[in-house]
Amino acid sequence: MAILVVGSIALDTIRSPYGHVERSLGGSATFFALSASYFTEVRMIGVVGEDFTAHDEEVMRKRGVDTRGIEHAPGKTFHWSGEYGKNPNDCTMHELHMNVFEKFQPKIPAGYLDSEYLFLGNIDPLLQAKVHGQLKSAKLVGLDTHPFWIETAAKQLADAIKNIDVMIINDGEARQFAADHNLVRASQKILAMGPKALVIKHGEYGATIFFREQQFGFGKHPFRAPALPLEEVRDPTGAGDAFAGGFMGYIASQGKLTAEVLKRAMFYGGVMGGFAVERFGTERLLSLTRDEIEARFQIFRQMTHLG
Amino acid sequence: MAILVVGSIALDTIRSPYGHVERSLGGSATFFALSASYFTEVRMIGVVGEDFTAHDEEVMRKRGVDTRGIEHAPGKTFHWSGEYGKNPNDCTMHELHMNVFEKFQPKIPAGYLDSEYLFLGNIDPLLQAKVHGQLKSAKLVGLDTHPFWIETAAKQLADAIKNIDVMIINDGEARQFAADHNLVRASQKILAMGPKALVIKHGEYGATIFFREQQFGFGKHPFRAPALPLEEVRDPTGAGDAFAGGFMGYIASQGKLTAEVLKRAMFYGGVMGGFAVERFGTERLLSLTRDEIEARFQIFRQMTHLG
Repeated sequence: MAILVVGSIALDTIRSPYGHVERSLGGSATFFALSASYFTEVRMIGVVGEDFTAHDEEVMRKRGVDTRGIEHAPGKTFHWSGEYGKNPNDCTMHELHMNVFEKFQPKIPAGYLDSEYLFLGNIDPLLQAKVHGQLKSAKLVGLDTHPFWIETAAKQLADAIKNIDVMIINDGEARQFAADHNLVRASQKILAMGPKALVIKHGEYGATIFFREQQFGFGKHPFRAPALPLEEVRDPTGAGDAFAGGFMGYIASQGKLTAEVLKRAMFYGGVMGGFAVERFGTERLLSLTRDEIEARFQIFRQMTHLG
Repeated sequence: MAILVVGSIALDTIRSPYGHVERSLGGSATFFALSASYFTEVRMIGVVGEDFTAHDEEVMRKRGVDTRGIEHAPGKTFHWSGEYGKNPNDCTMHELHMNVFEKFQPKIPAGYLDSEYLFLGNIDPLLQAKVHGQLKSAKLVGLDTHPFWIETAAKQLADAIKNIDVMIINDGEARQFAADHNLVRASQKILAMGPKALVIKHGEYGATIFFREQQFGFGKHPFRAPALPLEEVRDPTGAGDAFAGGFMGYIASQGKLTAEVLKRAMFYGGVMGGFAVERFGTERLLSLTRDEIEARFQIFRQMTHLG
């Protein structure tokens, strides 16, 4: 079933100890869409400038992504440049140009209004709420954010998550948003604000999904999925969006919201997040096969399951 | 089957946001022995001073721990005091008095020489190697260390791990010892120094066991066990030793070294480490039942296993 994603589309300049890329296709909607495209039909809403090439769009289309919702605006595409250290959690941002993204007002094309799944990628929470308001029929709504919005728009973010199903953020964002270092208490505080479930991503340590009581048939304990320990994290950019794409994409492909579907979705999220960081930019997410994804899923199972 | 542990026995003064204790029974050998005592027969080697009371020893004996190897020396017992912050990973040490521990020369009582399992707790690696040399018949030897020895005695530590089976350390120690931020590469470097397996503890995120190729019937991928997300970490002291006690104790109780035994041992390690931090000092490790341990083990399974 179709999943609609709204988020940033960017041209990223990235350097890490393993190499660099210049103005490479990126952004939260891009990574999410490519990742989810291995599981289900994906529709994309975002804005690009005049420097966004036909080739860039073709890359998305080749993966079956519906790009009718990409708006072409006068000016330049959202661009950032940054550098990762030996510790991939250390990132120095050199440049950030919002460009056409600054005045982005997402519009849902008529052909997208029957989307049953919705992912609100990292954009202004006011815009996330607006998009959600236009697609109230969605069966499941996921939302990601960024420390910038937690710092500057916490109230708007609280409004945006009031009626969603799953918030998907990382350790640091959960601690910051709940103002509590302990992740269990932080999850309780965030779940009390509305979401039925909260996925907290722990980077190389995997991710945990916490539930509001009795949701999706889960008991009081969370569920934890691993990450594959990698020898080389070449480019961490997009890992979180690739996780969300695997998680939401798998759920959309199943068409039912059972506890088992959510557990497997956590594994697929980890699988896709891991693939994303093995190569620069979107490279690995463009060259995958479903067999490779299933093989990695089986490794995750072997890595965590008792006999 | 009997497991012999050598390590520190201490009187700890600990403060955390949840309370404090004064001169409470602690030390690496103590936490390890109490934890392992729920699984198998435990024998203990360590040194205490004149301030170590008959009550302190009785506490160990009540858990069935064989304390014949505790040497009583003139002077005071090893003592430290410290304070944990809201983030339990932040610890400020106020005092550290080695006292009788400074000149500790472990001696293995004749009655301990048939111990089939050996755990070399955090002490000078020269002493760890000496004890191991006196118990060459051990079926499985585990070893823990501390950043202090990595900084000041890396060569001696490298010698001490040459012929052991399992090294059990945490993220920071693995990175420091291998001089590599990446845990996969760090594990490869450490395994190349001798151990057949390396357990890296990730605190609240669980632990991973890495293997030298073909050891214990494992393939090339590591195995990962969770930790139970806790709302309150009251006192993190001894968590690592309690983990090692559950891990080694379970292995000793099984008497065979299969891949499945090692996987379950990782789960029991996580279970015992989690219990240790729920109360101050040794409190929780003294009041457990095997049923509580099994119930927690089942929660770990539910938290990680697909249907």
